[in-house]
Amino acid sequence: MRTQVGIVGAGPAGLMLSHLLHLHGIESVVLECRSREYVEHRVRAGVLEQGSVDLLHRTGLADRLLREGMRHEGIELRFDGESHRVPMTELTGRAITVYGQQEVVKDLIAARLAAGGSLLFEADAVRLDGLDSDSPVIHFRRDGQAEELHCDFVAGCDGFHGVSRGAVPDGVLRTYERTYPFAWLGVLAAAPPAVEELVYANHERGFALYSLRSPEISRLYLQVDPDEEIAAWPDERIWAELRTRLETVAGWSLNEGPVLEKSITPMRSFVVEPMQWQRLFLAGDAVHIVPPTGAKGMNLALADVALLGDAFAAWYGQQRTDLLENYSTTALRRVWRAQHFSWWMTSMLHRLEKDDPYETKLQAATLRYAVSSPAYAASLAENYVGLPAV
Amino acid sequence: MRTQVGIVGAGPAGLMLSHLLHLHGIESVVLECRSREYVEHRVRAGVLEQGSVDLLHRTGLADRLLREGMRHEGIELRFDGESHRVPMTELTGRAITVYGQQEVVKDLIAARLAAGGSLLFEADAVRLDGLDSDSPVIHFRRDGQAEELHCDFVAGCDGFHGVSRGAVPDGVLRTYERTYPFAWLGVLAAAPPAVEELVYANHERGFALYSLRSPEISRLYLQVDPDEEIAAWPDERIWAELRTRLETVAGWSLNEGPVLEKSITPMRSFVVEPMQWQRLFLAGDAVHIVPPTGAKGMNLALADVALLGDAFAAWYGQQRTDLLENYSTTALRRVWRAQHFSWWMTSMLHRLEKDDPYETKLQAATLRYAVSSPAYAASLAENYVGLPAV
Repeated sequence: MRTQVGIVGAGPAGLMLSHLLHLHGIESVVLECRSREYVEHRVRAGVLEQGSVDLLHRTGLADRLLREGMRHEGIELRFDGESHRVPMTELTGRAITVYGQQEVVKDLIAARLAAGGSLLFEADAVRLDGLDSDSPVIHFRRDGQAEELHCDFVAGCDGFHGVSRGAVPDGVLRTYERTYPFAWLGVLAAAPPAVEELVYANHERGFALYSLRSPEISRLYLQVDPDEEIAAWPDERIWAELRTRLETVAGWSLNEGPVLEKSITPMRSFVVEPMQWQRLFLAGDAVHIVPPTGAKGMNLALADVALLGDAFAAWYGQQRTDLLENYSTTALRRVWRAQHFSWWMTSMLHRLEKDDPYETKLQAATLRYAVSSPAYAASLAENYVGLPAV
Repeated sequence: MRTQVGIVGAGPAGLMLSHLLHLHGIESVVLECRSREYVEHRVRAGVLEQGSVDLLHRTGLADRLLREGMRHEGIELRFDGESHRVPMTELTGRAITVYGQQEVVKDLIAARLAAGGSLLFEADAVRLDGLDSDSPVIHFRRDGQAEELHCDFVAGCDGFHGVSRGAVPDGVLRTYERTYPFAWLGVLAAAPPAVEELVYANHERGFALYSLRSPEISRLYLQVDPDEEIAAWPDERIWAELRTRLETVAGWSLNEGPVLEKSITPMRSFVVEPMQWQRLFLAGDAVHIVPPTGAKGMNLALADVALLGDAFAAWYGQQRTDLLENYSTTALRRVWRAQHFSWWMTSMLHRLEKDDPYETKLQAATLRYAVSSPAYAASLAENYVGLPAV
């Protein structure tokens, strides 16, 4: 099998890249080890920056997003028994849109298939070869058979655990990493959200986030120890803990409902540099992970492939090499901006040490400043809605 | 001996309080364990916020400050081989003034003595008694003799190592504290500064700060290990290290000259709450320490006693108790704002861990953001020049 750009991974990065290449008249094949059913129902992030929304609009993918996406113009910060709104749109002129990652994935898959795109599900990339030649090969397995995809370039969009990053020879990539002494327990519940905007709560027992996916579906998170087992969290314990951490404002209570899904996710900051080696271009979680507090993961993945789409278009259309050569440097500027913002939100809102009263007071001072200084609030907001260019 | 307000410590806090009380027609006596010569030549901070300058103006202490103080409208951030100016005045409308703490102390001592104020040097407060009565007593020693100062109130302005804080019964005060894995080696040099504004440098070998005290005197600092001995730092080693960390911009070099003074200062964040117990009111370093990176120590001390001066005036003049009762709560708002800012500047600029490449990249991203986002720069600047009210 042969194509122009071989793409490993059918998450938002791989699918959007395939879509962008198609719009530029460039062929691609997407290999995805999971089933279509699986990737369309994988519950992940749900906040789109303004720039991500604009990208979906611009590329004809926004019909359902326009109908079902919920535009939010602020977030709420809850601490010390008070709740304060950060008016993001007032401060920046931009907004975020709540729309689940799996919905973006569904829209992308539908668009690719409607255009006759080649998406191979349950096709497991096992090895990349010839990345330093002008015709690399992706070896993959499908239905028990070994197959090969020959291409001009490989786009590694296969996430943190994918095979692409490991295909780069030892010593080329530099890894920057930080782990956090906590994880997030995430809950999807069939309960009408008791909030209209996201509520980020700093509480002495740990961070909690009240978010939503639709007028009927709530999405809630609790900071937990990284070694917690989900079995230790029956639904009633989860609701009790959410009430404790979120019901700190007089007269306000959350809405409960059947838990549809729950899982525990570790928190990590991770960057690999450079994001390219020879004919391999890496994007999304394959090369950078942020803790989810800043809601930047999916947005970074889309920003990466927006650059890559233009770079491949310049290469195929005008034999220009500069955009491909500059891809890593350009993308990393946004990546590190998001790394800083995600670390900032994470360290401002979580309980970081078991017993550090200074930390608790410092966080309260930071949060109080965020809700009282227009400059600091604008800075937080401009990162949250997404900086237009970095 | 008897007075209205007994003040322990003749640093900026104690002296300014005595001066403010005098302007309100309230008597005070200042007890200082060191000699006048010593306190007038103790080299400490050198950056006055706009609010501190205004206070000195308003209270008739600004003649020499106006002549010799140097108004700065920006600072420079140096990292990654680049140097960027943060235009503080353009961003906030306010400025800082470079004027050494010992100069403020000299001006205050001169003003108090000219007004017939009672300043007792080499008078060592050893014990506070009767703080929960309406006539507390400060026991002190002078010329080998035990003496007593009876007063209505005691102001504890005697620094971190002073006796005042310890006079509060166990269990009343809560301490919030953080130490840092580094110290500052400070150098005063007879060398014309090669800079017109302060230069804060983030370097892989550690932080460096190029500051100045006059057109002839440079003040420079180096981040060093907390257990370094000053004997291990002959002048030539200091200059070599300063060159390495500061001469990172092409064509720029620092000016060297005879070292007049050098010393190593540990870094600490420290707050005690509340700042009052019964008839004892604590101010300045006696109740809060910040790492010097944000240049907030002296400014906080002056802000504390500005509140105390008004509070005593309201008590003596109008029998109002509210300002004295609210002193701690009001002062702590500014204290925690400065704690956050000082921690922010410190963690953005110092090498925090021996081997944490993620930290280094995060700092570079933060600094790059500080010099590219007007909102973030304005936030940094409004803290640096001093928020007008918190």
